[in-house]
Amino acid sequence: MKVVKFGGSSLATGAQFQKVLDIITADNDRQVVVVSAPGKRFDGDIKVTDLLKTYADQTIAGANTDEIMTTILARYQEIAQHFSLEDNKIISQIKQQLVHLNRVHYPSFNHLYAAFMGNGELLNAQLLAAIMQEKGIPANFVSPAELGITVTGSPRAARLDPESYHAINQYHFDDTSLLIVPGFIAYTNDGYAATFSRGGSDITGAILARGLQADLYENFTDVPAIYSANPKIVSHPQPISKMTYREMRELSYAGFAVFHDEAIIPVIEANIPINVKNTNDPQAPGTMIMPNHAIDSENPVTGIANDNRFAALYLHRYLLNREVGFTLKILQILATYNVSYEHMPSGIDDMTIIFDKAQLTPEIKAHISHDLYAIIAPDELDWLDDYAIIMIVGEGMQQHIGTFSKITSALAKAGINLPMINQGASQISTMIGVPVDRMNEAVQVIYNAVF
Amino acid sequence: MKVVKFGGSSLATGAQFQKVLDIITADNDRQVVVVSAPGKRFDGDIKVTDLLKTYADQTIAGANTDEIMTTILARYQEIAQHFSLEDNKIISQIKQQLVHLNRVHYPSFNHLYAAFMGNGELLNAQLLAAIMQEKGIPANFVSPAELGITVTGSPRAARLDPESYHAINQYHFDDTSLLIVPGFIAYTNDGYAATFSRGGSDITGAILARGLQADLYENFTDVPAIYSANPKIVSHPQPISKMTYREMRELSYAGFAVFHDEAIIPVIEANIPINVKNTNDPQAPGTMIMPNHAIDSENPVTGIANDNRFAALYLHRYLLNREVGFTLKILQILATYNVSYEHMPSGIDDMTIIFDKAQLTPEIKAHISHDLYAIIAPDELDWLDDYAIIMIVGEGMQQHIGTFSKITSALAKAGINLPMINQGASQISTMIGVPVDRMNEAVQVIYNAVF
Repeated sequence: MKVVKFGGSSLATGAQFQKVLDIITADNDRQVVVVSAPGKRFDGDIKVTDLLKTYADQTIAGANTDEIMTTILARYQEIAQHFSLEDNKIISQIKQQLVHLNRVHYPSFNHLYAAFMGNGELLNAQLLAAIMQEKGIPANFVSPAELGITVTGSPRAARLDPESYHAINQYHFDDTSLLIVPGFIAYTNDGYAATFSRGGSDITGAILARGLQADLYENFTDVPAIYSANPKIVSHPQPISKMTYREMRELSYAGFAVFHDEAIIPVIEANIPINVKNTNDPQAPGTMIMPNHAIDSENPVTGIANDNRFAALYLHRYLLNREVGFTLKILQILATYNVSYEHMPSGIDDMTIIFDKAQLTPEIKAHISHDLYAIIAPDELDWLDDYAIIMIVGEGMQQHIGTFSKITSALAKAGINLPMINQGASQISTMIGVPVDRMNEAVQVIYNAVF
Repeated sequence: MKVVKFGGSSLATGAQFQKVLDIITADNDRQVVVVSAPGKRFDGDIKVTDLLKTYADQTIAGANTDEIMTTILARYQEIAQHFSLEDNKIISQIKQQLVHLNRVHYPSFNHLYAAFMGNGELLNAQLLAAIMQEKGIPANFVSPAELGITVTGSPRAARLDPESYHAINQYHFDDTSLLIVPGFIAYTNDGYAATFSRGGSDITGAILARGLQADLYENFTDVPAIYSANPKIVSHPQPISKMTYREMRELSYAGFAVFHDEAIIPVIEANIPINVKNTNDPQAPGTMIMPNHAIDSENPVTGIANDNRFAALYLHRYLLNREVGFTLKILQILATYNVSYEHMPSGIDDMTIIFDKAQLTPEIKAHISHDLYAIIAPDELDWLDDYAIIMIVGEGMQQHIGTFSKITSALAKAGINLPMINQGASQISTMIGVPVDRMNEAVQVIYNAVF
């Protein structure tokens, strides 16, 4: 049995819906379908989820919401029309639900936003189920609550109640009819709507794949494959046919937009493989992400990711590492400002702390500097903002002694300095730091050296 | 003005004393001489300091100490005899002081050990001064207390009172007469003898060089030079003619037996250059250690050090680095057991913590593992004991882009894997980890690649 998830661009228009129908019906194992809200139809278009946010804003402001509601409804009508269902009762049902949204009392604005914004998936799943039924394909819309998914936490950053897996597993699963499930939205025990903060529909699919013990989690998007390097930097990079969970995680950390890595924890925990496929080219094998794969003896590198979202803090003090508790003091200062670090390569008298830049406002940097001077009195303290990180990832790298040497030779030949190398903790990747203005060039050089 | 320090092997015999005399008188700038206790005369010989420890042990045990005292005295008599001074009053003075040692009341056994063991330097300085006077060389024995050196702390791990520098600087320095000062021993404000725990005479010399604002600190030992790699691993390695303080520090950290690096902090703080020279070949330039030096454009590597005193702890947990405070918890556990870490390369879900093995008893390892499992619940926790560290050090390495690539290529060609690379914090060195059984081979390969 396969759980299949379709992203927003795969469900943006009637023509895209048709592709989705063809994909679902082409394989009898595709029995559970997780649906996103209609995405952008063209560059500059607005996603239904964003329209729903405007609807929520206007509701809170007490503004007239007729126009925005009409705009949202039109998106569903357009799709229905493609299947000549513009007069089907599903359209009036969708309209009723949209109207109903701003007549309900919500305990908080966050509850309101969750209910509005999660409706895009809800209505799209209902529409897909109605279209399938009309075409004689046995399919039923099922609410996440009916399936056993219960969430806790903040309404817009819902967390799965771990008991859900047991409940999902108890669901009486009738394999003669397809289940069409909205992603992104779920419900608390009190019956309030809530949305997942990260990963959206991907996480719903992953939860169901694990709960229903699926053999495969198929994730359909609009990209032909996951590439071995950023196609904006390397022209026509090789697609990745297979990668492990760990490789995926290291690559997505350093800038690969595969999924939000937390979204797929449920399937990772259950060892269920993920197949990332293209709705617009469903015959293509896409990329398989799985617990393990045979190591390609020809090419031990799976992918090269790069990111310039990092900043570094350089500290120097003589006899720094003699002091038990030195790093402890530094981390306590960071914890005071709720700042986490990414990596911390150290010398004997030196330490570089690498951060996600997003956490560092000028004010927080000033506070941290102040406290560091006061508490540990470094001889030198420098914030370095021109840091880019390149991650070279491959399960086979440990066995291929020459790979790293190939990379450093190529970079040396190109005259690119390596101010930072961090290798050793993760056994499947090497992280190098380069000056940010040479990042793209370095990625190209490395790509050409290893592929 | 130069402060000159002679090590124990340089003062082990009358013949060695003669070399020391020649060195001192060859340069009028050598005005302050710091003296060690007589060292080993031959392989298997016992140093005077160790004889004094036996004397202290026997005193505490209430045993008869006649024989050990005679043995100790004989070492000084032998040297005096070389200069036909066996009947000089210095010998009876030395004997009196040795006898006096076990007639004094000490506040603690540690005070007793400090007084006994520091006597080796004290008596040797007196003997050297007497020999010089006899030869008509103007020279005076001066006690560290007279010079202004005051220490605090535990008697056998004395720490310099920082006020000492001011006091030393006030010392009325008469440049017509040499000052002969015992190393290793110093006195507290209460007049008790104490000894430095690390670095011994080296630290006394460094303190005086700084306090007296010397132009140079000459450190005479029995090695021809500091070599660019361990001569037991690489045959005939190049001697290092010049290195910076930072290079010395990085090299001594990873196994170079130059000095105990803490011994030379005083001269580093005062930017005084150090010249490591050979008593047995004083014309040779030896190795200069200084604040900065011109970078050799031909060869950016100054030295290669290696050490297998490290152990590593590998931790893996999914989403490990998402958690603010994760490392903090680990370090708090380490602090509980008073264990410091050396380095901590990290991946996304992995972290390797490198320790000095000496800190880790099986019991402490078990405690740490237990607490880590209880508090941070890693998916994987492994202690790795087969780790050796090689440090490639050179101020010029940052400017020489190709150096690192040369090293990795050579290691790859030799089929040596690099499970750990830590570069980036220290700007003048690269630290690599290799399996301990390939350490020597890796050092040879790296040496051949860069020299």
